[in-house]
Amino acid sequence: MLDRDEGRHTPYMVQPEYRIYEMNKRLQSRTEDSDNLWWDAFATEFFEDDATLTLSFCLEDGPKRYTIGRTLIPRYFSTVFEGGVTDLYYILKHSKESYHNSSITVDCDQCTMVTQHGKPMFTKVCTEGRLILEFTFDDLMRIKTWHFTIRQYRELVPRSILAMHAQDPQVLEQLSKNITRMGLTNFTLNYLRLCVIALFFFHLTCTTNPEIQHRYFKAHARTSQQPPQVVCDGSGGHHRAHKWVHKPERQNQKQGKG
Amino acid sequence: MLDRDEGRHTPYMVQPEYRIYEMNKRLQSRTEDSDNLWWDAFATEFFEDDATLTLSFCLEDGPKRYTIGRTLIPRYFSTVFEGGVTDLYYILKHSKESYHNSSITVDCDQCTMVTQHGKPMFTKVCTEGRLILEFTFDDLMRIKTWHFTIRQYRELVPRSILAMHAQDPQVLEQLSKNITRMGLTNFTLNYLRLCVIALFFFHLTCTTNPEIQHRYFKAHARTSQQPPQVVCDGSGGHHRAHKWVHKPERQNQKQGKG
Repeated sequence: MLDRDEGRHTPYMVQPEYRIYEMNKRLQSRTEDSDNLWWDAFATEFFEDDATLTLSFCLEDGPKRYTIGRTLIPRYFSTVFEGGVTDLYYILKHSKESYHNSSITVDCDQCTMVTQHGKPMFTKVCTEGRLILEFTFDDLMRIKTWHFTIRQYRELVPRSILAMHAQDPQVLEQLSKNITRMGLTNFTLNYLRLCVIALFFFHLTCTTNPEIQHRYFKAHARTSQQPPQVVCDGSGGHHRAHKWVHKPERQNQKQGKG
Repeated sequence: MLDRDEGRHTPYMVQPEYRIYEMNKRLQSRTEDSDNLWWDAFATEFFEDDATLTLSFCLEDGPKRYTIGRTLIPRYFSTVFEGGVTDLYYILKHSKESYHNSSITVDCDQCTMVTQHGKPMFTKVCTEGRLILEFTFDDLMRIKTWHFTIRQYRELVPRSILAMHAQDPQVLEQLSKNITRMGLTNFTLNYLRLCVIALFFFHLTCTTNPEIQHRYFKAHARTSQQPPQVVCDGSGGHHRAHKWVHKPERQNQKQGKG
């Protein structure tokens, strides 16, 4: 942990990317017993109170973009492990840093999210893409926005398993099936979908004002010809999903700062 | 790079393990053009002038232990890449630090050396073992001794290749063959062997004193019944190889400090 008094004068001598190193270390210390409190503490250490986390990627049925607010971030990370992952870390290669008045941006075009899966057999999944992080430039140096655009992924299996089952086409076929979609488990994907649906209904039911409710539906009608739940689950394409998710986020931020 | 004046007062606020993170970053910045000068600068940044690097592992024919001195360390790292590796980094998990008067020891029982190979196909090799590092406790915080004891290794191949060749037993057999021995390429293994042979002959020819030469051979005779070159290439077992290598190293250190 950072000494606060010392930190105030020399915030971080090291690069902001060091925070990702620290995050990796923290993720290493997770155990089977790490509960919601543990994940809340994790998120509090690395994310601002009004932080957002965005994941963009392409599935078979088109581009997706999920943005979740601060309260949903702890659970996002925990779903990764609940989906069967035993290890998670991020490798940033050739990242670029830019300093602004109150923030630092780390732009890494060669980011790899590495997850290790124990079942049904040892698998390492390398999910590659561009990670853009915006940090608040103070002594806590926490993340304001996390945006990971997944480009490709690779599932790696031990060569030894190949050697063992080279004679068995059935086992080989089973072994050749991916266990993730774009590097994400179904557990995490479902969570992201749920987040967006929940957010939609939250904002819809939060207001009893029929005019605002009507505006939500009108906004939807403008951007999509599909039924509401299709937009909500994020499969409505890049820009539409973006609109639906970002609008309420901005409202949240205002409330938080007010 | 560390600001020297500032560094003198607050050497490293962060853990010494952070030096391995910095080493990983430096290794990332290697290119095809990185020449001997680049590797010398690399070693100078991370290793003390009298540093030693030791690798212990078991091959089919028994336990090996290679210790190389500071002058041979740059080339050791470069051989890794010359052997076909495109990426090299170290992941330390649950490492323990202990502070002494003038040094810090990092003992990591769950260290993974990760190498990425591009040929004959994409392969990730995870070499796991115990890494014990001794750092000098000053503002440079460089490594005095590096000792990596390899426990096991795992070669990982893309699942997609499996899917492509599931019907072809010949290709599968080819794919199931390891490209390293205990995670090390033949390039690196040969270099380690050469180092030890060279060191033996160096110390043998450095002295024209037949008595000292005789002592070398006598020491050999005491510890081995095998011909000299067998001991030199490190296959003479754990303790014997240790004896042969460490003795001259100590001489080197004395000369360096005198």
